[in-house]
Amino acid sequence: MANFDLIHDLLKPGTSKIVLLVVDGLGGLPRPSDNKTELEAAQTPNMDRLARQGTLGMTIPLVPGVTPGSGPAHLSLFGYDPIALPVGRGVLEAVGVGLEVGPGEVAARGNFCTLDGQGRITDRRAGRIPTEQAAPIVQRLSAIRLQGASVEVRHVREHRFALVLRGSGLDASLEDTDPQATGVPPLPVRASDPAAEHTAELVAAWASAAMGLLRQERLANGLTLRGFSTDPSLPRFPSIFGLRSGCIAVYPMYRGVAALVGMTAVDAGGESPKEEFGAAARVWSDFDFLFIHLKKPDSRGEDGDFEAKAAAIEEIDRALPFLLDLKPDVLAITGDHSTPSQMRSHSWHPVPLLLWAPMTARRDSQVSFGEGACASGQRDARKASDLMPLLLAHAGRLEKYGA
Amino acid sequence: MANFDLIHDLLKPGTSKIVLLVVDGLGGLPRPSDNKTELEAAQTPNMDRLARQGTLGMTIPLVPGVTPGSGPAHLSLFGYDPIALPVGRGVLEAVGVGLEVGPGEVAARGNFCTLDGQGRITDRRAGRIPTEQAAPIVQRLSAIRLQGASVEVRHVREHRFALVLRGSGLDASLEDTDPQATGVPPLPVRASDPAAEHTAELVAAWASAAMGLLRQERLANGLTLRGFSTDPSLPRFPSIFGLRSGCIAVYPMYRGVAALVGMTAVDAGGESPKEEFGAAARVWSDFDFLFIHLKKPDSRGEDGDFEAKAAAIEEIDRALPFLLDLKPDVLAITGDHSTPSQMRSHSWHPVPLLLWAPMTARRDSQVSFGEGACASGQRDARKASDLMPLLLAHAGRLEKYGA
Repeated sequence: MANFDLIHDLLKPGTSKIVLLVVDGLGGLPRPSDNKTELEAAQTPNMDRLARQGTLGMTIPLVPGVTPGSGPAHLSLFGYDPIALPVGRGVLEAVGVGLEVGPGEVAARGNFCTLDGQGRITDRRAGRIPTEQAAPIVQRLSAIRLQGASVEVRHVREHRFALVLRGSGLDASLEDTDPQATGVPPLPVRASDPAAEHTAELVAAWASAAMGLLRQERLANGLTLRGFSTDPSLPRFPSIFGLRSGCIAVYPMYRGVAALVGMTAVDAGGESPKEEFGAAARVWSDFDFLFIHLKKPDSRGEDGDFEAKAAAIEEIDRALPFLLDLKPDVLAITGDHSTPSQMRSHSWHPVPLLLWAPMTARRDSQVSFGEGACASGQRDARKASDLMPLLLAHAGRLEKYGA
Repeated sequence: MANFDLIHDLLKPGTSKIVLLVVDGLGGLPRPSDNKTELEAAQTPNMDRLARQGTLGMTIPLVPGVTPGSGPAHLSLFGYDPIALPVGRGVLEAVGVGLEVGPGEVAARGNFCTLDGQGRITDRRAGRIPTEQAAPIVQRLSAIRLQGASVEVRHVREHRFALVLRGSGLDASLEDTDPQATGVPPLPVRASDPAAEHTAELVAAWASAAMGLLRQERLANGLTLRGFSTDPSLPRFPSIFGLRSGCIAVYPMYRGVAALVGMTAVDAGGESPKEEFGAAARVWSDFDFLFIHLKKPDSRGEDGDFEAKAAAIEEIDRALPFLLDLKPDVLAITGDHSTPSQMRSHSWHPVPLLLWAPMTARRDSQVSFGEGACASGQRDARKASDLMPLLLAHAGRLEKYGA
């Protein structure tokens, strides 16, 4: 994680503009035919030109080997350490599917499980029930109403869902109901702090109603709840880094994470890169920092469609001149994580980073933007969470440390 | 160090097999004639093929510049931070020469020193007395018997030896007797905690007897004891990483370190790589993870014999097909540290790493296994202790973190 106190202490005012362009799921794996990844196979003349002028690198989203969800991956890019910070797993899960979690609201991760005739857990993940079968079950649970709080429930993937309670007097100090074992029933909802007794009763009432609705479900006749947590009151990105900070993103998830750190949401104007860059043009004078999120390469990677992911990257490259016309002083093009189309999922692999700053970026010897070039580049930031101080430095917004 | 809680929380079951092949002292320095290291000079067609298909890197065993002993170096490879963890220096020294240190047993490092006529230290390391002269002295010390505890003493190298006390009511809270200065006598054996008074008396009795035996030794007429410590009760490797874990190693040192973290020792079947790979074949179905230790390259490096170290690496390469025939899903070939034959000793230099996982390893542009290629590779793990989560990821045994 960036040392927020240090960075904040070194801030100096400036008029420079920073753009963090996040191409979701950018990193990939090489295809056998020519040993090129999606990014390397794509025709990206604009990115390649920036690569020749700038500095390439590879960043690790969280820690080596750990595949990040989109929430933690973006927090890293914003300079935070999502593992060290008290961002509850429930909040991350909820924000990750576009649910808002405000101060005083309580979020939890839910798991469907299977129970035997005596109510003992036989499979803690309900055989990883397929998404298309789990989603309608979550839909049925959304009908449950409580007295004294509103509840929102949303499916995540397979056996996982997210739950958010909103109301007055709530407290997230609840223990997991997942016993982390089979052969025993789910644990009762218990407060770990007396202040959460009322919340425990509400959650217990919801869980009881949910278990009633699930009783006849063949694939998932039980559930457990974990990671109760509330808005983590994260340090505010705009004040840490001294940047009026805007977020241009189409999907609620990314606007949610940006909101968690205090960025201002900007109307994206449409789903295409060109439209999102148009949104940037409209608000250009209002912000010092713009986080622009482009979703499609990740989606095509998750589809397992190498060609479509490469094409989505090419679409971004074609639109890039509209962004460059705004004359950002510092532009970083990177991903939040890798989504190799061969894996059809997020992965732990390091992520390509292109850092362009005409006055201060060292040119390395690389002439195109791709995983191989980035692995051989300068690699000034090794961890994604080291990126923000670098962007500030290139933007001329950091004083020297010490005499 | 790997974040054990995080990794453990993300584990998912799998049937994949991971092999960690540790070529002791693998890293080297280039010889002047052709600027090649031992690994680069060796003919290693099998490793080169794996390098073409896999990902290369360089790992730092502990921290930059610090040369690790074999104990700490292996703990790092197993994902632990030997500097942060309470692994006593005495335990590491003892385990390092194949002595077992169980719970409630007390280990210490011993140093021979020289004393003047008044019993004041003149050389804290007895002029680094040569091993062949120190070993027989340690042999004489092994005759000392105590009432109430058994003692085992074993030579390490030059002026260093290890001591282990076994008995009931022992406590390792003893202060060093090395005053870290010359011109003063060794310190008396003192308990730093009242619970260790009995142990202090036992160690004092042993030291007194030892000083008596040493009185007539010309090269080493005194000794000091340091790093009193007991079994560190390390987190268990098999449960942290969810892997049935076996250790195939010929030397007691490596079996000892593996035992400290809870791996199961496997009969190595012989000293050659081919025999050790044969042992792997015999137990293949019993384990998810095999740590295979190959000693010879380190020994030849310590001999200062460049050609013999290269030949030892070639012998491993020739045997490698026997290991590959077992079809591991993930194979890492690396060293615990560098042992450049020019230095005739362990060194701090980063260590080559070859990570091979047919489905998920990014191919970098490197086509052979060597220090130069590894320095230009992807370098996904920078610290040796980051390797284990990567191996788990490539083995498909880690869930995503967050949504």
